[in-house]
Amino acid sequence: MSLNLDSKNIDLASIDPDLWFTLLHLARRGGLRKGVFISTPELAKDLGTSQQTASRRILELEAKGYIKRSVTRKGQIVVITEKGADLLRAVYVALHDSISEALKSIVITGEVFTGLGEGAYYVSLNGYRLQIKEKLGFDPYPGTLNLKLTEPSDLYFRELLNHRAGILIKGFSNGKRTYGSAKAFKAKVKDIDAAVLLIERTHYGIDILEVIAPVNLRQALGLRDGDRVSVEVQLT
Amino acid sequence: MSLNLDSKNIDLASIDPDLWFTLLHLARRGGLRKGVFISTPELAKDLGTSQQTASRRILELEAKGYIKRSVTRKGQIVVITEKGADLLRAVYVALHDSISEALKSIVITGEVFTGLGEGAYYVSLNGYRLQIKEKLGFDPYPGTLNLKLTEPSDLYFRELLNHRAGILIKGFSNGKRTYGSAKAFKAKVKDIDAAVLLIERTHYGIDILEVIAPVNLRQALGLRDGDRVSVEVQLT
Repeated sequence: MSLNLDSKNIDLASIDPDLWFTLLHLARRGGLRKGVFISTPELAKDLGTSQQTASRRILELEAKGYIKRSVTRKGQIVVITEKGADLLRAVYVALHDSISEALKSIVITGEVFTGLGEGAYYVSLNGYRLQIKEKLGFDPYPGTLNLKLTEPSDLYFRELLNHRAGILIKGFSNGKRTYGSAKAFKAKVKDIDAAVLLIERTHYGIDILEVIAPVNLRQALGLRDGDRVSVEVQLT
Repeated sequence: MSLNLDSKNIDLASIDPDLWFTLLHLARRGGLRKGVFISTPELAKDLGTSQQTASRRILELEAKGYIKRSVTRKGQIVVITEKGADLLRAVYVALHDSISEALKSIVITGEVFTGLGEGAYYVSLNGYRLQIKEKLGFDPYPGTLNLKLTEPSDLYFRELLNHRAGILIKGFSNGKRTYGSAKAFKAKVKDIDAAVLLIERTHYGIDILEVIAPVNLRQALGLRDGDRVSVEVQLT
């Protein structure tokens, strides 16, 4: 089966979902690489439809040139044509792109607010600062950009960060007291390299995102309280 | 977006094709990695449906837990949940497996018949034999297993080989006459390493497949004329 690598630019809106899934089931039975014996009861079971519907779908796929079909003594044999393979591939590429993007990064948007200065304090401690330099690749400006997340979708993606390993910033003790560990995710705010910092023990709830960077982001981007800012957070 | 790598074993037959495609369109708009503003007219256009249908699909996806939705002043924001991501991923994995398999090999089945001995003659010529040893990794038994393809699906996959580069076996001249080039594809017959040989100038039509191997396949597999044999042909 030669699945061409050049895109055929098939408009996904033009695809009939039911026909596409029928083609998927034929592919799973091997139809992209050999002739597949298909009995209507089997196909109906695959599709979760009646036999009548399964039969109709096969005829439609044939009429549209997505499969070739031949009827033998033993039953019908079906192969997926190049045109059919292109249809499968168009969805595959769209899915692949969306999934790969999502595996790499998420986007969280929130409103700038003036925080308690807690993050600024932590970032200025050498116990954290030196690790940030080493693990994130920049010397952090002693201050954080605080974003308040208001939309449920941003809270959802913020919550996902809790379940990701991120980059560990180890806790430490300076003799007087101990400081808990944190995790960081590399990030971008506009075009500025930054990081999101999740401190283990914090006074903030999970509706807050603390962003650090080598520069004062508020100043560099001319931000004021209430401005909305999107942060692209690297998951890998 | 954490698309878990362990399979959720979602039964593809249980997936509603229309809902799945709606989810795909949301993923293409970024719903796996951020909150997406969705207007019903836009979604209807994506899906090629009426606005009423598009609205109903969104509500169904929400009711089934595949998306989270919130209505704001500006419109509705949608994110794809872990459960929704799993549903997208189940289809992605099934497609990926079918496509990868098809990119690697195809299966052609035919009936054993006794040929003209033309293939055996060619294979015994040093001009071909030494190239076969070098490029396919075995010293060919001086004879070919000839298969007659009877099913349209096998002819279809046989035809695909014409459009593939394969492994070039160069033509040569021995002073008396010239011999044309051929192409070969590595193959397996049962568990025996073999190859399919497509000779440029042959007396055979495209309903014939000639298989060579380091052993006499007919003998090794106890084959007789009329027996059906499947050959797994490597495309890469």
